[in-house]
Amino acid sequence: MAHIQVPEGVPGIRSLVMFRPETGKYLYDLAQELLRGDSPLSQADRELIAAYVSKRNDCFFCMSSHAAAARCLYEGDEALVDEVLRDMERSSVSDKLKALLHIAGKVQVLGKEVTEGDISAARDLGATDKELHDTVLIAAAFCMFNRYVDGLASLTPTDPEVYKEMGKHMVKGYNLPPKQA
Amino acid sequence: MAHIQVPEGVPGIRSLVMFRPETGKYLYDLAQELLRGDSPLSQADRELIAAYVSKRNDCFFCMSSHAAAARCLYEGDEALVDEVLRDMERSSVSDKLKALLHIAGKVQVLGKEVTEGDISAARDLGATDKELHDTVLIAAAFCMFNRYVDGLASLTPTDPEVYKEMGKHMVKGYNLPPKQA
Repeated sequence: MAHIQVPEGVPGIRSLVMFRPETGKYLYDLAQELLRGDSPLSQADRELIAAYVSKRNDCFFCMSSHAAAARCLYEGDEALVDEVLRDMERSSVSDKLKALLHIAGKVQVLGKEVTEGDISAARDLGATDKELHDTVLIAAAFCMFNRYVDGLASLTPTDPEVYKEMGKHMVKGYNLPPKQA
Repeated sequence: MAHIQVPEGVPGIRSLVMFRPETGKYLYDLAQELLRGDSPLSQADRELIAAYVSKRNDCFFCMSSHAAAARCLYEGDEALVDEVLRDMERSSVSDKLKALLHIAGKVQVLGKEVTEGDISAARDLGATDKELHDTVLIAAAFCMFNRYVDGLASLTPTDPEVYKEMGKHMVKGYNLPPKQA
């Protein structure tokens, strides 16, 4: 049971933003811009960064839902998602994406963990300022979303089918749910 | 020097949102709603939670600027801010605010650290669902802001006078700076 009185049966962040739409509005707007807005990173790569950071933050809800969205977006290459969640360094994503995921992993620990060396390694593999920026901000944002979802103990489904359906909806975009009755 | 090419001489998050206003807009909207919007927590208490979490995340920029804003808002009781940053448990803030800061400190570590016991201790001291919600979300949001600011190595002034001025502006609200030329 969640730590506060949110609508029953509604999973994860959705229940929290229904409880408090005034702040929820901006959380959904931010997720939409970060994950679906214009970016030099593909939507699939951005969802993968979100799932990777959520796994490192031990947030089962965000990891499972964003991994599901990433699997939809990597159509044909779905296996990449599970490879990264299992062992990122040995996965078959590109070296450039590995360097960005490595930075995302540093951000998950703490901002100051990101070194000049991490940044120049990613640049040497072709990463641009905007890609570096978006990687750091997505990783930082999921350090918020993960803590919000778990810090209030929101409902976390365990059935993989639930996340599969969720992922399909998430691909279409992040829209604020209707206000709590 | 920042890890990416942001406007020179502009400190902290401001330089990052000038680089990327598309995402910056929602970050400022969120900060404004969280720290200046309607809430059962006073603006001073909210800024104090922000400064406390930022200190725990070792983010000098966010800690110093939000501590400065909190000092302005606690007019007459400014010393509370430094007491909390030095030793929260022994500070002279109310027991209820201590219980909320304790929860914010747990969120800083990881969402799942917040226990039923932490929540009921705060409730016993009068904390409502909305106060618990806002405390968790502010703490979570600063886990994002801190990582964004430090993860891209944005400019961090060291002169306390700079933060004093910044705090005065922050009290008036969080508005997106003009777009980078």
